[in-house]
Amino acid sequence: MSTRTYAILGTGALGGFYGAKLQKAGLDVHFLLRSDYEHVRKHGLVIESVDGNFSLPQINAYQDVKDIPQCDVVVVALKTTQNQSLPKMLTSVVKDNGVVLVLQNGLGLEPEVAQIVGSTRVMGGLCFLCSNKLQAGHIRHVAYGHIILGDYTSNYYPAGITPRMQQVANDFKSAGIGIELTEDLFKARWQKLVWNIPYNGLSVILNATTAELMANVYSRKLVEQLMHEVLAGAKSCNCSIVDSFVETMLNYTDKMKPYRTSMKIDYDERRPMEVEAIFGNPLRMAQAAGTHLPQISCLYHQLKFLDAKLNEGV
Amino acid sequence: MSTRTYAILGTGALGGFYGAKLQKAGLDVHFLLRSDYEHVRKHGLVIESVDGNFSLPQINAYQDVKDIPQCDVVVVALKTTQNQSLPKMLTSVVKDNGVVLVLQNGLGLEPEVAQIVGSTRVMGGLCFLCSNKLQAGHIRHVAYGHIILGDYTSNYYPAGITPRMQQVANDFKSAGIGIELTEDLFKARWQKLVWNIPYNGLSVILNATTAELMANVYSRKLVEQLMHEVLAGAKSCNCSIVDSFVETMLNYTDKMKPYRTSMKIDYDERRPMEVEAIFGNPLRMAQAAGTHLPQISCLYHQLKFLDAKLNEGV
Repeated sequence: MSTRTYAILGTGALGGFYGAKLQKAGLDVHFLLRSDYEHVRKHGLVIESVDGNFSLPQINAYQDVKDIPQCDVVVVALKTTQNQSLPKMLTSVVKDNGVVLVLQNGLGLEPEVAQIVGSTRVMGGLCFLCSNKLQAGHIRHVAYGHIILGDYTSNYYPAGITPRMQQVANDFKSAGIGIELTEDLFKARWQKLVWNIPYNGLSVILNATTAELMANVYSRKLVEQLMHEVLAGAKSCNCSIVDSFVETMLNYTDKMKPYRTSMKIDYDERRPMEVEAIFGNPLRMAQAAGTHLPQISCLYHQLKFLDAKLNEGV
Repeated sequence: MSTRTYAILGTGALGGFYGAKLQKAGLDVHFLLRSDYEHVRKHGLVIESVDGNFSLPQINAYQDVKDIPQCDVVVVALKTTQNQSLPKMLTSVVKDNGVVLVLQNGLGLEPEVAQIVGSTRVMGGLCFLCSNKLQAGHIRHVAYGHIILGDYTSNYYPAGITPRMQQVANDFKSAGIGIELTEDLFKARWQKLVWNIPYNGLSVILNATTAELMANVYSRKLVEQLMHEVLAGAKSCNCSIVDSFVETMLNYTDKMKPYRTSMKIDYDERRPMEVEAIFGNPLRMAQAAGTHLPQISCLYHQLKFLDAKLNEGV
């Protein structure tokens, strides 16, 4: 049994699900909560899952990060729109020889965390998880759930497969979570953007499911063009993704059930959207490399408008 | 008093307004109607206008274009989405030495009409009119109303100022309609697109007024980028518009009252949008000249999706 201790920063649909699985597997897990704190402290977590339901009547729940003991692995499962609070959070909770595991969508998040805890204490993971928080402490896991895990080095230089990655992977595997290791976290993040940029963006802007976007010849074409622009962005950052990956993603999405993207769920529930992590950061990285991505830029500006309108409460 | 006879194909917010003004000025005007025919035949037209209200209890109303006598000037005031019916309509109603005046939004409409009646019998006009049809035969003119009038020659080659233009202009002026003559209809159409493409497109896609688009720094930037793409499109077609025209249009829009664009009105009222005339045709002309306009193409694909969804009645 692993003795590594875990802190989960953000006990929502994602952090709550993975954290609960880890605790159920016998690991020592500490959960940070905000609005759900009182409820979860009393009643614990309930997980409805396609892999089997379970509940944890008692968990280590915290309202203040300062009360969490220093942990070996600190999982960042907040929305990226809350990342401004990371500097205050991270310094106290991660052990000197621990690691911060960034399980967020988008690009450029590990460098932000590295600035806080140093680049030797950062890992990243890409979650392919479909889950929702139904109410405080009650999470429904609908489909998928595996994670692509990669280690981080300065400037996203490929880190290879490190012993640390394998240890964390073993913990997750022991909890029944599918894990794939990548030698190149940067490439894995760009690859996920190939899907996230068109579908997250257009689902919000056009009020559509993935299936609707695929069924119309024009939106499908735009999805495809956007995917190729993501490849161009990756390439400008010396990250090569084969052209056929676009076709793979289109075929993959054709076979999915009609899906409401995470950004669409945020938008529908009037929560801030992760526009900067998913659109702004890749655009700026490509721009810094001299490459303009006009259609992604178009979506970015549209989403920023819609996000601002949400905040205004219009 | 002019003896030129006018046919108005499409007695809506635009055709009904200009046609009524011409008849009020004493000209012989014949109106084609569809769904409003019975009402207007009995009750005529009521014009509420910032320039003064008036009504025409009796007008020459027709339900079938074949019943209209051949006219000197045939005004096409249909939505471009109905242009598939032009071949059937135009041949019978325009005199041999008459002219078809295309008062529609977008690009590439005069060539379509020229294919039907010959390129020597086509003129074009750009209407800067803010009017709505409140109900059958009842039109409210809210603001503006002037027309930029140009003659058409094959391939939009600049036609100069022709006597025919001046005659038609005099008729409109006698009816109190502001007229500006242009030697270069093609350029005038591209110039109008500098405004129409960003504001019509984004107002629908982002559910916004012009004022909202201008107030947000991101949508405003996107408007500006789209305007520059229109200039690039024009340039690819050997039509040069000075860069400062973008700034002029932005300033002009800043000073306007919050405005719901014509495409937004169509969308809100679940009518087909003029996507091909305003977006598709300019894109294809630029493409044929080897120039890709990625952000306009992005809007085009988004609008085609939304237009199809409207048609599905979703």
